[in-house]
Amino acid sequence: MSRVYNFSAGPAVLPVEVLESAAAEMLDYNGTGMSVMEMSHRSQAYSDIIEAAEQDLRDLMSIPDNYRVLFLQGGVSQQFAAIPMNLMKNRVADYIVTGQWSKKAAQEAEKYGQVNRIASSADKTFSYIPDCSDLPVSEEADYVYICENNTIYGTKFKELPDTKGKPLVADVSSCFLSEPVDVNKYGVIYGGVQKNIGPAGVVIVIIREDLITKDVLPGTPTMLTYKTHADAKSLYNTPPSYGIYICGKVFKWLKDLGGLEAMKERNEEKAVILYDFLDNSKLFKGTVEVKDRSLMNVPFVTGDNELDAKFVRQAKAAGLENLKGHRSVGGMRASIYNAMPIEGVKALTAFMKKFEEENL
Amino acid sequence: MSRVYNFSAGPAVLPVEVLESAAAEMLDYNGTGMSVMEMSHRSQAYSDIIEAAEQDLRDLMSIPDNYRVLFLQGGVSQQFAAIPMNLMKNRVADYIVTGQWSKKAAQEAEKYGQVNRIASSADKTFSYIPDCSDLPVSEEADYVYICENNTIYGTKFKELPDTKGKPLVADVSSCFLSEPVDVNKYGVIYGGVQKNIGPAGVVIVIIREDLITKDVLPGTPTMLTYKTHADAKSLYNTPPSYGIYICGKVFKWLKDLGGLEAMKERNEEKAVILYDFLDNSKLFKGTVEVKDRSLMNVPFVTGDNELDAKFVRQAKAAGLENLKGHRSVGGMRASIYNAMPIEGVKALTAFMKKFEEENL
Repeated sequence: MSRVYNFSAGPAVLPVEVLESAAAEMLDYNGTGMSVMEMSHRSQAYSDIIEAAEQDLRDLMSIPDNYRVLFLQGGVSQQFAAIPMNLMKNRVADYIVTGQWSKKAAQEAEKYGQVNRIASSADKTFSYIPDCSDLPVSEEADYVYICENNTIYGTKFKELPDTKGKPLVADVSSCFLSEPVDVNKYGVIYGGVQKNIGPAGVVIVIIREDLITKDVLPGTPTMLTYKTHADAKSLYNTPPSYGIYICGKVFKWLKDLGGLEAMKERNEEKAVILYDFLDNSKLFKGTVEVKDRSLMNVPFVTGDNELDAKFVRQAKAAGLENLKGHRSVGGMRASIYNAMPIEGVKALTAFMKKFEEENL
Repeated sequence: MSRVYNFSAGPAVLPVEVLESAAAEMLDYNGTGMSVMEMSHRSQAYSDIIEAAEQDLRDLMSIPDNYRVLFLQGGVSQQFAAIPMNLMKNRVADYIVTGQWSKKAAQEAEKYGQVNRIASSADKTFSYIPDCSDLPVSEEADYVYICENNTIYGTKFKELPDTKGKPLVADVSSCFLSEPVDVNKYGVIYGGVQKNIGPAGVVIVIIREDLITKDVLPGTPTMLTYKTHADAKSLYNTPPSYGIYICGKVFKWLKDLGGLEAMKERNEEKAVILYDFLDNSKLFKGTVEVKDRSLMNVPFVTGDNELDAKFVRQAKAAGLENLKGHRSVGGMRASIYNAMPIEGVKALTAFMKKFEEENL
């Protein structure tokens, strides 16, 4: 068995310790005589798993008591509908469009009410984050929506928008648990786990209690109503139980490593290696405005499509996987999530150096 | 490590060979150098997994070409809304209520149109299946809905209702792949996989092509629109990729064992052992009308709540897990899905015999 360095944007690399532990417990979890996959979600053993997962996440993010944590299904794409269905009391919402995912979120929300796109970086292929210090937030807006880290384009909000008192709703899929966060600044923080936390099929929604109401839009499915899951502590129906168990293991792994402060340090150390290399390279260059660079997703190009393709091909042969950029940007993208070891980033830059020498 | 016999109604026992294989591949699937959990859902390796899973399911169930197979999220509870949102063109549907799940399905559908409950077995605690040979099917009904095997009550439709030409929609969660099925008789067959196929978090929808349209009810989320997933071959967004991979392994396991004809034989052999014991017991008795007995879920009682509790407690101590019945029926329930070996059923009846001798 030999492991590759996997730079996939998601599903993505997981901590090897977590995978080893899951494999060891596959036929018998903790003396229960069964796999977590085979376990009733109403059993004591599973209650312990999901409750510990929630508590560990609360500890990691310092989630205040007036926020609820929901483990749901359907990915962020389903939340694009659930958010307006639950929150659009006035049928108005403001969206800041900084990439494909916030664009899709805004489109879906238009099914349910008036959507105002109050800022966008579409003019420069989403290569920057617009100034959000004084936005024309709508009087009647039920919330202001952002995608905080843009997986495809490699940008991140370094400062949150001034929402002028409206609840901020943020998709944090690709920066979840990558650095400390002040939950109090948000109405809803949510994201799919398949980038920085666990296997695809779990979406975590952290929502301020006053935003959870029975008063949802007519026709909202019971399963898309936050109150359903808040009241039932994510056990209204059978949850994606094995995925939540893996997430719980990752939460423990993060705590053992020192929590989000420590992760931020690690992630900055990794990102600096890659960005420094790009800034000094004669062949490769980053595609994002320096001030808005993501710690997690690093797109870069040579400027020559054929050379890009050659790089991706040769990197793969060298055990550096999934470096092809998203088709809308082209070139390459290295996703260097929490579980990517620094050795992976060093191997990547060493390979880029060699490639540069051979191809310049 | 010692495995128990797990009679859980779901999530439920999985084939030990499948779990062993998944554990062995956890850090390196098929020479890719990564876990299936870490794999891009757009990669060739994952395409091969999901395409093989669909093909194996098609082979097992002899699914005709004019039916589509969708791997979705959210469980049957989410389908309770998706079904009317996609199918209720006339805003009318007929429901046959034979237990809690069809009852819940009918309640959810009322959000979207007129629901006629054209038959029910509520009068006798859902202990039988009503005669469905000549039902008052509504002229305008968009479909007729059943839950084909009732997990809680242990009943099964041995003959499908005469829907008088309307599409039949069937939740088959707890009898999925337990015996051969004629897909042509259905408009939609669907079910959560966590009883007879795989880990919770995947729901499989098999739907006749003409029922997949753009013409859904206003406000239907993109993620609840069948056309979204049919057009994208279940890859519109990141699917529950690891769960689908496990399902695929179970499909291979079923094919290796001889397919659904062979499973039916095995399941009948197991069920006969348990039902014969119940029919001859002086202490235990089944709760379901003989003609409507499920092959999968077998509820039984002693008639004495304290004795029931003692049985469940002592059985657990003997390695026979999750025999407590659903609170609405009381007593005991043994779920004996495909992956429950005949040795498990024999161990259960041997234990029941001993308990009967000690407590009569």
